[in-house]
Amino acid sequence: MEVIKYPNKLNWNIILKRPVLKTEELDNIVLKVLEDIKINGDKAVKKYSKQFDKVDLETFKVNPDEFEQAEQEVDPDLKIAINIAKENIEKFHRSQSISYEEIETTKGVKCWQKAVAIEKVGIYIPGGTAPLFSTVLMLGIPAKIAGCSEIILCSPPNQEGNINPVILYTASIIGITKIFKIGGSQAIGAMAYGTETVPKVYKIFGPGNQYVTAAKQIVSRDAVAIDMPAGPSEVMIMADNSANPAFIASDLLSQAEHGRDSQVILVTTEEDIIETIENEITNQINNLPRKNYAEEALENSKIILVKNDEEMVEIANQYAPEHLIISTIYYREFADKIINAGSVFLGNYTPESAGDYASGTNHTLPTNGYARVYNGTNLDDYVKKITFQEISKEGIVNLGPVIEKMAEAEELIAHKNAVSIRVKNILDIEENNEYPFRIK
Amino acid sequence: MEVIKYPNKLNWNIILKRPVLKTEELDNIVLKVLEDIKINGDKAVKKYSKQFDKVDLETFKVNPDEFEQAEQEVDPDLKIAINIAKENIEKFHRSQSISYEEIETTKGVKCWQKAVAIEKVGIYIPGGTAPLFSTVLMLGIPAKIAGCSEIILCSPPNQEGNINPVILYTASIIGITKIFKIGGSQAIGAMAYGTETVPKVYKIFGPGNQYVTAAKQIVSRDAVAIDMPAGPSEVMIMADNSANPAFIASDLLSQAEHGRDSQVILVTTEEDIIETIENEITNQINNLPRKNYAEEALENSKIILVKNDEEMVEIANQYAPEHLIISTIYYREFADKIINAGSVFLGNYTPESAGDYASGTNHTLPTNGYARVYNGTNLDDYVKKITFQEISKEGIVNLGPVIEKMAEAEELIAHKNAVSIRVKNILDIEENNEYPFRIK
Repeated sequence: MEVIKYPNKLNWNIILKRPVLKTEELDNIVLKVLEDIKINGDKAVKKYSKQFDKVDLETFKVNPDEFEQAEQEVDPDLKIAINIAKENIEKFHRSQSISYEEIETTKGVKCWQKAVAIEKVGIYIPGGTAPLFSTVLMLGIPAKIAGCSEIILCSPPNQEGNINPVILYTASIIGITKIFKIGGSQAIGAMAYGTETVPKVYKIFGPGNQYVTAAKQIVSRDAVAIDMPAGPSEVMIMADNSANPAFIASDLLSQAEHGRDSQVILVTTEEDIIETIENEITNQINNLPRKNYAEEALENSKIILVKNDEEMVEIANQYAPEHLIISTIYYREFADKIINAGSVFLGNYTPESAGDYASGTNHTLPTNGYARVYNGTNLDDYVKKITFQEISKEGIVNLGPVIEKMAEAEELIAHKNAVSIRVKNILDIEENNEYPFRIK
Repeated sequence: MEVIKYPNKLNWNIILKRPVLKTEELDNIVLKVLEDIKINGDKAVKKYSKQFDKVDLETFKVNPDEFEQAEQEVDPDLKIAINIAKENIEKFHRSQSISYEEIETTKGVKCWQKAVAIEKVGIYIPGGTAPLFSTVLMLGIPAKIAGCSEIILCSPPNQEGNINPVILYTASIIGITKIFKIGGSQAIGAMAYGTETVPKVYKIFGPGNQYVTAAKQIVSRDAVAIDMPAGPSEVMIMADNSANPAFIASDLLSQAEHGRDSQVILVTTEEDIIETIENEITNQINNLPRKNYAEEALENSKIILVKNDEEMVEIANQYAPEHLIISTIYYREFADKIINAGSVFLGNYTPESAGDYASGTNHTLPTNGYARVYNGTNLDDYVKKITFQEISKEGIVNLGPVIEKMAEAEELIAHKNAVSIRVKNILDIEENNEYPFRIK
């Protein structure tokens, strides 16, 4: 790791710069796939599955037998673990549900919001050697809690045409049964436009490679919503002299093992701790199956030594990390000052991997500085909030003159008339042709 | 208006089809402007202001004298009206602020969310003959309530180089003082990338023409967030025999006067009411200054006669209107069944124009069917919710085995180690090298 000691604030921008991601070149390839699926449906999906994923399936949909088989194949201890994680994620996401009160803004004018589930959502789970069943929990559970009536899931099959049983098991315990063996940009196209087998959805969630990301961005211009764009995963760790170097090293390695483009940054006020952490990394890295990835990621990683606690906080807020671990003695005070981060892990006994799997928080989080604006996936992402207003006769008489005056100033006279005609009607009937209150 | 009687449900899709909006052709023009601003800052903004808006300004920033002058120029009665609307909008948007509780998901594992304001936001207000000061209220008030530390506003000046005094007055009473006389795609570029005078923001809000919309979509791929894409405004009205035909006509006209591409749809179970409403429209339209717009919009508008209340609800949910007026006797029961709409207006005395200006709800709403997924602007749009977790020694010992098992199954061994190393440390210190609970 590159160690940078007491950098000038003017250079923080350069130090914290993330690699620029280019997706533009893929757009043409992906656009062709999407257009083809829009027109030819299943036939096109079949074609690209064969071309890109090297599988030629008769049917995409996972059938009940496959779920049963998966249920039998998954290690019973893993099932226990998944079910405990599921409960925690449910508890936390259920707590995000809120009911809004009716507000009387002017006498007789009532306004309120109501959260209503997005009817149809699609979840994409990438393939690969290891099954990302934890992401099934993270994206499926809030959809169920929100009450989305149609939840579908696409994931690429292996070359035998199967989806990993742990993914099927995890989906089934949440109650997701419409699963399609489709991967890549063709999965996104199928969910965005619908095919003979795959229902069209209104919003698509889930991580994926650059083709998937490009496809999501393209369909999002076609009236399909998407969750946030996903970039390489990141962690920033703040450590003072209360931090345990071995723990810190293990957290840095957790992030680094994701892949060579992982972003790993340690910020500390303690010069002495740096060497100890580096030695711990050297010790711990040897037994990792993904050692090569971790080593490559660490080559691009940074340890930044800063003057004081204030600079630690400032640098974290400037970077806006996806994951922020605060290993300082007064970590709650630090937490209060964090304004840009995805998910924050407090104290010595809260590793990032707790949030990745089982603490209850969501692990789908904003990368690439998006944490300045976006939050991680939460219940809000599966609902929209409809506003309602109910105005009584008294209310429109009270508020009428305000609306009339403003509509007139914006030169929208029909807007004004819609009020005047109602107020006149009320006052005529009540044989009282004067506003109780009037703006001239 | 075209009257469609008892259409077959299979044809609803076609009847409810909105015109397709094409923005792609503008992309190249807009892209050039944005690239130029990214590189040349103010100089480029100046160039395009001259080229597109025919103004050549020395400085873009509105100075304190201009605010003072505006304050004097605005009609005192309009000021009263704006201030009442401001209070209502504040009341309703303040009620959307929520604090989340700490959840203990497993003994010793605490999780919570915290809403934190997006630091820097930009608001775009279009120019034109009438000043859209109501949109300044709608987009500026929640930014202030959320606590955004930097709020800037761009709006094109007239050919004398001035922004309409009502816009300046409205901004100033909310507390927005960084206002720049810049319009079109160059305003979006200036806010997205920052220039010597205009600060870079993290999220851009506001309506605009097709150039502005295209610019917003392009910068949104460059790590700047935007509010939802804006299409032509829409209203759907549901009416039974309790509806007042004159009121309905006035609401249809309010929407129609926005412009020729306005979408206006009446759904009713009452065949008798249709002719009365059409006659009312003929009467009321004559005195409208924007009669031509309204007439053109009405030519493309539809009156749909349906069999029963259930069909009314179903057609509304299928269309997902930006504005939905429910003029039925049991309007609260109908409201409970609405799952896709931006803002809903209940009963005979709640015209859409109340929500456009002063009831308290936001008037920046999802058009073009986006109401299936998105809500109108609310307080959530100005904050992100950071998740926190704090795990005690007891907590990591309790939850550790779950995380270890799951990380192992996803083949992320460093993730597992980050837990194991902590648990081992705790159990060693406590001279108890057994997990109290273990998944094998």
